Amino acid sequence: MTTFDNVTVVKKANIYFDGQVSSRTIQFADGTEKTLGFMLPGEYTFGTCAKEIMEIMAGELDVLLPGSEQWQSIKAGESFAVPADSKFDIKIKTPTDYCCSYIK
Amino acid sequence: MTTFDNVTVVKKANIYFDGQVSSRTIQFADGTEKTLGFMLPGEYTFGTCAKEIMEIMAGELDVLLPGSEQWQSIKAGESFAVPADSKFDIKIKTPTDYCCSYIK
Repeated sequence: MTTFDNVTVVKKANIYFDGQVSSRTIQFADGTEKTLGFMLPGEYTFGTCAKEIMEIMAGELDVLLPGSEQWQSIKAGESFAVPADSKFDIKIKTPTDYCCSYIK
Repeated sequence: MTTFDNVTVVKKANIYFDGQVSSRTIQFADGTEKTLGFMLPGEYTFGTCAKEIMEIMAGELDVLLPGSEQWQSIKAGESFAVPADSKFDIKIKTPTDYCCSYIK
């Protein structure tokens, strides 16, 4: 069972798209943050500030990354990166558990 | 912003009802656990092992506690307790963010 140890967790959820997407913010001692999130089936567009690495722990989705014209299929055990200050589109096919790391 | 500090977070979500309910397990230094969870609208039945205190941080729901014949309305800022080794029914009316404490 993989855990994050000695971290701070923000109690309230981050809620998007009427709750179809929700996440929890995890703060690490080195000042970095990750979110652990959950997405229900649907199509969503997200914007990034920092570069993001999205690790998919459960579920299946298609993602259209900025600058790409081709959707990529991503499933549990796979990851994708999104540049800073950009937008990406995502089609969630089955309920998706993810860990998002913010790279500064 | 309320946080839980110096805790361990299990990376993978707990997933129930095809993802309509999901939660994250938080482990404290004293050996106790809480879950931070999110419930989408719907009707669900849950079983308890330990006594649970459910603190509702966002959302609206009705709950039917064991031994009761009357549904109670619960909204953000309110809590309810469920005895150990019992079942309770819940009707989620709006997306609900909760913190569940397990009392041993």
